[in-house]
Amino acid sequence: MKLADIYGHFQSDIKVIEKELEETIQARHDVLRKASTDLLHAGGKRIRPVFVLLAARFGNYDIHALKHIAVSLELIHMASLVHDDVIDDAELRRGRKTIKSQWDNRVAMYAGDYIFAKAVQTAAYFDNRSIHLIISDAIMEMCIGEVEQIRDQFNWDQNIRTYFRRIKRKTALLIAVSCKLGAIAADASDEIQRRLYLFGYYVGMSFQITDDILDFVGTMEQIGKPAGGDLRQGNVTLPALYAMHHNPDLKTEIVETISKDHHHADMDSIINQIKESGGIEYSVSVSDQYLAKAFKQLEALPDVEAKTYFLQLAAYIGRRKF
Amino acid sequence: MKLADIYGHFQSDIKVIEKELEETIQARHDVLRKASTDLLHAGGKRIRPVFVLLAARFGNYDIHALKHIAVSLELIHMASLVHDDVIDDAELRRGRKTIKSQWDNRVAMYAGDYIFAKAVQTAAYFDNRSIHLIISDAIMEMCIGEVEQIRDQFNWDQNIRTYFRRIKRKTALLIAVSCKLGAIAADASDEIQRRLYLFGYYVGMSFQITDDILDFVGTMEQIGKPAGGDLRQGNVTLPALYAMHHNPDLKTEIVETISKDHHHADMDSIINQIKESGGIEYSVSVSDQYLAKAFKQLEALPDVEAKTYFLQLAAYIGRRKF
Repeated sequence: MKLADIYGHFQSDIKVIEKELEETIQARHDVLRKASTDLLHAGGKRIRPVFVLLAARFGNYDIHALKHIAVSLELIHMASLVHDDVIDDAELRRGRKTIKSQWDNRVAMYAGDYIFAKAVQTAAYFDNRSIHLIISDAIMEMCIGEVEQIRDQFNWDQNIRTYFRRIKRKTALLIAVSCKLGAIAADASDEIQRRLYLFGYYVGMSFQITDDILDFVGTMEQIGKPAGGDLRQGNVTLPALYAMHHNPDLKTEIVETISKDHHHADMDSIINQIKESGGIEYSVSVSDQYLAKAFKQLEALPDVEAKTYFLQLAAYIGRRKF
Repeated sequence: MKLADIYGHFQSDIKVIEKELEETIQARHDVLRKASTDLLHAGGKRIRPVFVLLAARFGNYDIHALKHIAVSLELIHMASLVHDDVIDDAELRRGRKTIKSQWDNRVAMYAGDYIFAKAVQTAAYFDNRSIHLIISDAIMEMCIGEVEQIRDQFNWDQNIRTYFRRIKRKTALLIAVSCKLGAIAADASDEIQRRLYLFGYYVGMSFQITDDILDFVGTMEQIGKPAGGDLRQGNVTLPALYAMHHNPDLKTEIVETISKDHHHADMDSIINQIKESGGIEYSVSVSDQYLAKAFKQLEALPDVEAKTYFLQLAAYIGRRKF
C-alpha cells in the first residue's frame, strides 16, 4: 500500500490544508516569503496534518476549524526543519564559510522564528488556552530534544535510553500532539484524546526508528543521500547503538574512523558490520513493538471509518522503505 | 532623575515580576536552564514589564494576572537578544570558528526558540485569543525587522525611511504592544488601549534613536564597548545617515574605511566627522519629536497617578546618557 492510496480517502481535505498552508505562509516580507514558500513547495508527507484530520474523525469533524490546527502543526514542523539546517556543520568545518552562507544562516534563523510565530497565530483561531499550552509545550520539548542531540553528538558511550528519550522529544511528541489536538478541536472525550495521544506517540517512535534504519539500509535513490549520514555526523542511532554494544571492536573502528575525519570517512565497512551485527533486525523489532502498542490503542477506540485509515497509515509509516 | 527613582514607586511589583521571571525560566533541561538564567541575571532595565504595569494602571490593576503578560514580553525580548547573538559576525570572519563556539551557536538558537515558546505559554494564562494574536504578530514583525537589518547591512545608500521602518519593527512595536497588552489585561477601554499603544510606539522610537546616538557619543564606560560599533558592523543608523547625506566626502571615507577591514577600522576620524556634521543634534531633535508625540498621547489619557511615572520614564528613556 502506498501513501497516496491511503491519502486518497481524504484527498479533498488535504487540498484544503495545502491551500490554507499556502495562504498562511504569505509573509509580509519578500525574503521570508521566499524562504517559506520554497520550503512549502519542497513537499513533505504532511504526516502531522493528516493525523490531525484522522483524529478529529473520532469527534465532530469540521475541516474549516480543523485546518487551523493542521496548518499550525505543519508550520511547527517546517520551522524546526529550517532551524535544523542553520549553521550546517559541514559547511563550517571545511572552512569555506562565506558572507553568502552566513547571510543565509541568519535569515534562516529568523525565517524559522517567523514560522513558529505564525504557527502560534494560526492556532489562536481557537479561543482555547489548552491548545496554546499544548503547542508551546511541544515546541519546548522539541528544543530540549535538539539540545540533547547536540550534546550527545559524537558521544559513543551513550545509553540506549538516551536515544529513546531524544527521539521522543524530537519526533514522537509532535505526532502525539497532532492526534490530541485533532481530538480536542473535534470535542472528542478525554478518554479518546488520551488514547489518540498515545497512538500518535507510539507511531511517532516507530516513524523515527524506521527513519534511522533507512539511513543505514536505504539506497541513494530511496533516501536521497549516501547511507550512514547520521553516524558520519555523529548522530548515534539505534542500529549503531545495538551493533556497538554487541561488538566492541566495531565500536573502536567507528570511533577511530569518524574521529579521524568524519567528513571523508569511508562508511562502507562500518555499515556492513552494523548490518551483520543484527542491529537492523533489532531496530525493526523495536519499531514493530511500538507499532503493536499503537494498534492496541487504536483497537480500544470507537469504530469509525477513520480507524482503517489510521491503521494503514501507521503500518505504512512503521514499515516504509523510503 | 534616575531609573531607580522612577522604579521606586512600584518596586514591590517589579519584585513580583522578577520572581515570576526566575520561576518561569527554570527549564526542564540543564543546558537551557543555564543559558536562560545567565541571561536573566545579566540584568536589563525591564522596560517592557514596567510599561505593562504602568499601562494597566489605566484599568483594573491586578499584579497577579498582569505578571504573566509582563513576563511574557520580557521573555520575547530576551529570546530576541539570544538570537541576536547567534552566528556572531566577528567570530566567523576571523576564521577562528571552533567546535565550542559552533556548539554554543546551535544551543543559543534552540535556547531562543525555547524562550519564545515559554513566552507563548506564559501568555496563555489569559484565555484571550487577541492577546495571542498580538504577541505572535509582534514576534513576526521583529523577525521582519531583523531580516531587514541583515539585508540593509553595509548598504550605504539606504533611505532614512528604511531606518525608521527598521527600528519600528525591531524595537518600538514591542514596547507599543507592552502598553497595549497591559491595558487589555486590565480591561481598559479601546480608546485607552489605542492611546497607550501609540504612547509606547513613540517612546520606543525615541528609545532606539537614543541608543543609536549613544553608540557614537557614549564613552566606553557608558556603553560598555568602543564607540562606533554599529557602523563598524555595517548597521547604518540615523546620525550616520544624516552625516553622509550632508557630506558626500564623509560617505566615501566611511565606505572605504569600513569596506577595507571593518573589524580593524579606525573609527575616530569618522565619529568626529559625524559629530561635526550635526548628525547628533539632528537625531536628538528627532528623538525629542517622538517624545513630544508620546507626551501628547499621555495628556489625553485619564488622570491617574501612573501618568506621572510614565512621563518620567519616557523622559528618562528619550534623554538618558547611558
